[in-house]
Amino acid sequence: TQELLSESSPEAPKARPCRVSTADRSVRKGIMAHSLKDLQHKVRDTLMLADKPFFLVLEEDGTAVETEEYFQALADDTVFMVLQKAQKWQPPSELGTRYQL
Amino acid sequence: TQELLSESSPEAPKARPCRVSTADRSVRKGIMAHSLKDLQHKVRDTLMLADKPFFLVLEEDGTAVETEEYFQALADDTVFMVLQKAQKWQPPSELGTRYQL
Repeated sequence: TQELLSESSPEAPKARPCRVSTADRSVRKGIMAHSLKDLQHKVRDTLMLADKPFFLVLEEDGTAVETEEYFQALADDTVFMVLQKAQKWQPPSELGTRYQL
Repeated sequence: TQELLSESSPEAPKARPCRVSTADRSVRKGIMAHSLKDLQHKVRDTLMLADKPFFLVLEEDGTAVETEEYFQALADDTVFMVLQKAQKWQPPSELGTRYQL
């Protein structure tokens, strides 16, 4: 119910802002997620991945994010990258200066 | 009613300051908005987009802002960019040093 998902429950992690990029960095979406599972679910919907398998890595260095506790330890607005079968993380520099500071 | 939308209601999000840039960064407007929908509505009026479709991304990295909850999680004075059909987010550096730190 709504009550169980609200911020008043100390057990439900608050939804946090995440940014999710495609492997080619052409699309980046802002997504609120309570948990890694919630993020995976919303990524599937938002990027219309249907039932294709994928995993999430950190956009900055390709670190795989596979556990709930690691997800919870990440900062707000961490940028994730979706990798589907046969896709590999690539550093931003190979695609131009787009995300360099 | 007015009562329901006023600041006295804990449910109605307070209007927040937003900054909205055109895709070429030539125009930037300060706009107060209660919600993503409100911002989209005001952007349409302010930038005179008539009924042309557009979407909002973060000016800093092109993250698409598509959900109300993600909008609400953003900081005050976040800079948005309006992208119309065929427009793509471009990093500031490729357009000069205008917004570099």
